[in-house]
Amino acid sequence: MNRVLVIGGGASGMAAASKAKRMKPDLEVIVCEASRYVSYAPCGIPYYIAGIVKNESALIHYTAEFFREKRGIDVRTQCIVEDMDPKAKIAHIKENGDKSYELEFDKLVIATGASPIKPPIEGVDLDGIYTVRLIEDGLLIKEKLKKAENITIVGAGYIGLEMAEAIRHLNKKVRIIEMLDHVLPNIDKDMAEIIEKELLENNVELILGEKVEAFEGEDYVEKIITSNNEYSTDLVILAVGVRPQTDLFRDKGLEFGVKGAIKVNRRMETNLEDIYAVGDVAENIHLVTGKPTWIPLAQTANKMGRTAGTNLAGGNAEFPGVLGTAFTKVFGQNVGRTGLSEVEAQREGINFKSVKITGRTKAGYYPDAKSITVKLIYEEDSRRLLGAQIISSGDATGRTNVIATALYAKLRVDDLFFIDLGYAPPYAPVWDPLVIASSVAARKK
Amino acid sequence: MNRVLVIGGGASGMAAASKAKRMKPDLEVIVCEASRYVSYAPCGIPYYIAGIVKNESALIHYTAEFFREKRGIDVRTQCIVEDMDPKAKIAHIKENGDKSYELEFDKLVIATGASPIKPPIEGVDLDGIYTVRLIEDGLLIKEKLKKAENITIVGAGYIGLEMAEAIRHLNKKVRIIEMLDHVLPNIDKDMAEIIEKELLENNVELILGEKVEAFEGEDYVEKIITSNNEYSTDLVILAVGVRPQTDLFRDKGLEFGVKGAIKVNRRMETNLEDIYAVGDVAENIHLVTGKPTWIPLAQTANKMGRTAGTNLAGGNAEFPGVLGTAFTKVFGQNVGRTGLSEVEAQREGINFKSVKITGRTKAGYYPDAKSITVKLIYEEDSRRLLGAQIISSGDATGRTNVIATALYAKLRVDDLFFIDLGYAPPYAPVWDPLVIASSVAARKK
Repeated sequence: MNRVLVIGGGASGMAAASKAKRMKPDLEVIVCEASRYVSYAPCGIPYYIAGIVKNESALIHYTAEFFREKRGIDVRTQCIVEDMDPKAKIAHIKENGDKSYELEFDKLVIATGASPIKPPIEGVDLDGIYTVRLIEDGLLIKEKLKKAENITIVGAGYIGLEMAEAIRHLNKKVRIIEMLDHVLPNIDKDMAEIIEKELLENNVELILGEKVEAFEGEDYVEKIITSNNEYSTDLVILAVGVRPQTDLFRDKGLEFGVKGAIKVNRRMETNLEDIYAVGDVAENIHLVTGKPTWIPLAQTANKMGRTAGTNLAGGNAEFPGVLGTAFTKVFGQNVGRTGLSEVEAQREGINFKSVKITGRTKAGYYPDAKSITVKLIYEEDSRRLLGAQIISSGDATGRTNVIATALYAKLRVDDLFFIDLGYAPPYAPVWDPLVIASSVAARKK
Repeated sequence: MNRVLVIGGGASGMAAASKAKRMKPDLEVIVCEASRYVSYAPCGIPYYIAGIVKNESALIHYTAEFFREKRGIDVRTQCIVEDMDPKAKIAHIKENGDKSYELEFDKLVIATGASPIKPPIEGVDLDGIYTVRLIEDGLLIKEKLKKAENITIVGAGYIGLEMAEAIRHLNKKVRIIEMLDHVLPNIDKDMAEIIEKELLENNVELILGEKVEAFEGEDYVEKIITSNNEYSTDLVILAVGVRPQTDLFRDKGLEFGVKGAIKVNRRMETNLEDIYAVGDVAENIHLVTGKPTWIPLAQTANKMGRTAGTNLAGGNAEFPGVLGTAFTKVFGQNVGRTGLSEVEAQREGINFKSVKITGRTKAGYYPDAKSITVKLIYEEDSRRLLGAQIISSGDATGRTNVIATALYAKLRVDDLFFIDLGYAPPYAPVWDPLVIASSVAARKK
């Protein structure tokens, strides 16, 4: 027998399956996916709800049939692993709600992802309260929104804000309730204020620093009780974060790490022989601190899957780690962040400094030059870059990726001045905003 | 006496003057600029001619008055250095066409820039043939274009193509004649073909592989004779490159390097004590080859100026070198290039490989995703990145800057896969085009 079982058909699971099968075609690769879809794009759901992406099928990169027919991967959907023994290498599977069987395997890839947190709040299981993760969630919310006018989003992270924009796009009332004192917990408060202004200008009601304590209603949610207030609502989107989906693997000898994610080495191997974990269920190494972390994001999930697939097939690949690079669009503002925020640097006990400048995305005389605010965080003594946050009414992503590259290469804040970034009036000012930020940091020596 | 003389008030000269004066306010800093403008943006001239930038004054970053009043720099325009002795530290100056005087100095910054090449072709001095460098050139061409309908541009580099687009913007006939077999000599032929297609689709007549042998006409140019053909024309833009403007400094003990540029070290010091050279007149170090090169571009000119200014004022700065990173807009296509092209790598005798992929700038399902073609060049054995060329109907600049950063940090082509570039459907596909290119290169091992 030469069988690989992959539990979970999201980005990382399908990347592992595809890579392993491509490298070693005689492997039998079985993917067991609980939902009806594999290889789907959860990050696209807000755009589907907004109607910007017209058809949910557009969110499926490849269908199960594609993987079966073109890649020779035995993809099974609506396939639940009910129990399993990673040491005996047996899984107990139920397919389509009835067919149950045992499946032996030689190697296992755990790619169960993360699931939305449902905090233990009174009334959280009422009808009309939804989380956003699966394509099915997107379909359900889109349907339910037809009869709702007054929407409350709990949580102001990426998904909360993207859902707020999507629902404003449908011309419905949107309120966001966030426990922290600013939106986007992965960026610092001073930068988040730019986004708060943008939300207010786009008629999103913003309630910061209030904790949701209960949901009330008969069967269907009607009211939200917070620490300070109460709000009536037609529908609630719960977007307070995710947790690694590891229930199936408790007390089976697997080691867990940061925030309950499965511990893996750079080869994506768990502590148990022949058992890999990839994607949102697995721990990462942070490239700036060198320490374990857990930052579940799509593009790194894909790369972890690819790494495991290579090793499954007898190759030798290592995934070096993550920077938490992320982009988000909030109405007319583009946010990019990478590496450590000030708050994260502080938490790590690093002696850091930061610099913040506002410049233009293009030559000042060129039409349509946009505002761009760059914040760089760097270690005081070594002057090594630690992270950046960039917000622009034009593009912030290109320059955020430059900082991600600089972080990967462990460059100093002063190197940014000299990198030889390109220039042309329609695309950049002659002193690039990153160069200006570096030169302001130089004056702080 | 504590006097710095800067010859040339362009980007690099004014950067040197400003930095020196800011660091050491008791320095007497005199800038002698031949034209009527200082701190101007020659790269903006095509956009002024197209009418995209409405007023030529927008192309002046700061006026001479600004530098005099706000920065205490003694800026003298229409100021010609007629002769000078760098060892005796005396310059012979003529101002406003009449006032002549001698000026002693302690330190000198040569920032005379580059001047457009006028090849020794019969008829090259006829009226109606213009080069593009100074604001005055822009004003003159804009005026002359009013009465010209059939324009010929000689040379298909950045300026030639940008001028072609500007003139098409005015709805006039444009023909480009280029001696090489492709446009944009700084990128490879296979990539240039994308741009040639774009030019043709925008009704630019493209004549490749023909050498201009003569211009004919009474006083005013009427006809162009090439190796194969002849063409009638109303006006000619000569854009066949630039050369360092060093005539004043011949036979005065200064050392010259690549293409006749002034030899400098990383502190921007020439071989003569207290004499600096910066900007387009000075040689550079290529960050990929480590060898001297000469790539005159605005943003590096600025940085060289800043470096010299710091050292003039007693500080200690080094300019590490250049990558030739450049962006250009050709109608609907955006071109970015950095580091070595295939042709340049070949010329260096490097054993290189390349990879080329075409992907999308955004998630495939997101509206308005654009095509992007990425070509990476890397050393075969070490797999070190050597350069990249990126062309997109969306944005190519952000990803070109990522490669510039990777080149600066001496990363390998395989590192690109792992950098943790950001993702969000409106800005990038989950497998970024750079990640795809890296992974295609990995298969070529």
